[in-house]
Amino acid sequence: MPRHITSFSNDTVKFLRSLRDKKARRQAGLFLAEGLRIMAEARDAGILPAVVACAEGELHPLAAEIVEQAEAAGAEAISVPDEILAKMSGKDNPPLLLGAYRQPRLGLADLDRSASDLWIVAEKLRDPGNIGTILRTGDAVGAGGLILVDDSADPFSVEAVRASMGAIFTQKIVHVPWTEFLAWLRAGPGQLVGTSLQTDHDYLAPTYDKPCFLMVGNEQAGLPEDYEAECDLLVKIPMHGRADSLNAAVATAIMAFQIRASWR
Amino acid sequence: MPRHITSFSNDTVKFLRSLRDKKARRQAGLFLAEGLRIMAEARDAGILPAVVACAEGELHPLAAEIVEQAEAAGAEAISVPDEILAKMSGKDNPPLLLGAYRQPRLGLADLDRSASDLWIVAEKLRDPGNIGTILRTGDAVGAGGLILVDDSADPFSVEAVRASMGAIFTQKIVHVPWTEFLAWLRAGPGQLVGTSLQTDHDYLAPTYDKPCFLMVGNEQAGLPEDYEAECDLLVKIPMHGRADSLNAAVATAIMAFQIRASWR
Repeated sequence: MPRHITSFSNDTVKFLRSLRDKKARRQAGLFLAEGLRIMAEARDAGILPAVVACAEGELHPLAAEIVEQAEAAGAEAISVPDEILAKMSGKDNPPLLLGAYRQPRLGLADLDRSASDLWIVAEKLRDPGNIGTILRTGDAVGAGGLILVDDSADPFSVEAVRASMGAIFTQKIVHVPWTEFLAWLRAGPGQLVGTSLQTDHDYLAPTYDKPCFLMVGNEQAGLPEDYEAECDLLVKIPMHGRADSLNAAVATAIMAFQIRASWR
Repeated sequence: MPRHITSFSNDTVKFLRSLRDKKARRQAGLFLAEGLRIMAEARDAGILPAVVACAEGELHPLAAEIVEQAEAAGAEAISVPDEILAKMSGKDNPPLLLGAYRQPRLGLADLDRSASDLWIVAEKLRDPGNIGTILRTGDAVGAGGLILVDDSADPFSVEAVRASMGAIFTQKIVHVPWTEFLAWLRAGPGQLVGTSLQTDHDYLAPTYDKPCFLMVGNEQAGLPEDYEAECDLLVKIPMHGRADSLNAAVATAIMAFQIRASWR
């Protein structure tokens, strides 16, 4: 049974709230996910929270089930008033359920590149919402995972987790320096594909190689020239308006689905 | 020359800040756009702000040019300290320039459907960031504009304008009830295309008709059944992961670029 807590100054309440902060997340090795739908998806993937907070009063049966399973697996569980849940989630409409999950800490050695034909590589993304949306797209397109290179917004931030719609639990995530990624990539098969304005090669033309590593650049700057130079293939998504760019998550999705389309 | 203002309680300062609120925007018929890049794009499209605020001290030459042109066209111009610009924009890093622009208020009668082969129609979108991203995608793919049906987040909100990256100035925007849109659509040529999980028709198969009206549903609920029933064609984007959905702006982009690809 979850302990019933009504005080904002309770240690578990304060701890869960602290996970909205990147440094606290890193120290604890945990991250927040919220809402019945996403937490049920995590559970279905065999993942339970280490700490769970639920609404007070009678719980939705599915929420009660997740809380019970988490407790059986050793999680601390509390029930709290809506105001506290709202404060933890940062939303006016509080979720029924909120959990702190262990951050999987994977390295490149943990990736089996033959597990998928498509991997997404993102360089210096700054917007956590874009990272979450790319994870969601990665799941939908059957990507093996997301490799973040160089500085990056935190994929385990509340915004990224929310935008991922559960894909934070299903996509493998690795964060490494570019040189380390490149050394790993070249130690096995894989075509590195980037989008660029500096090429006439249309993105609809190629049949992409398998496994394909789709490279996405920073939102403002795009890919640095020396990163482009390392790509096996640069392609261009033609632009028909005034703009010369797309949102980073949108460009990733157009490319990822086209890569898959080229294999059909 | 912009008047130099240092007080948060100045009327023009308060007025510009008020435009972060939807009701104030509607009453004034204005919206905020910020940053040199977007305001220069607007200017290049012949659009100048009705009120403009710039940083104090020596201005970037392009910023100075825009302020001067706006003043010559009758705009009120003020220069303010960074703290005030930051407060107006809601960003820690204030823009150099911020402007209040007139909301174009267009109806369906103002749209020339033959002006483009592709139009985007969005039903009950709730996230202004999605609306802005769809506008940006619309510009990139050469869409004629965005038709918002039924309730909708405000396309002129700060978040939508920011995500549009200038497309708020180049894409035509109309907001009407569904029945009104449908009557207008059926009074002329146009294929209404929706994405659905209820069909086996793959999105890569068709050569879409021109003009094509791409229909996007609400983020949570997708398209209502009776709206799907009005579509001339329902297609499915195949999903390869656990998820059965994509972010609304991402799905719109995949479809919009595929519609264009089908014409090549």
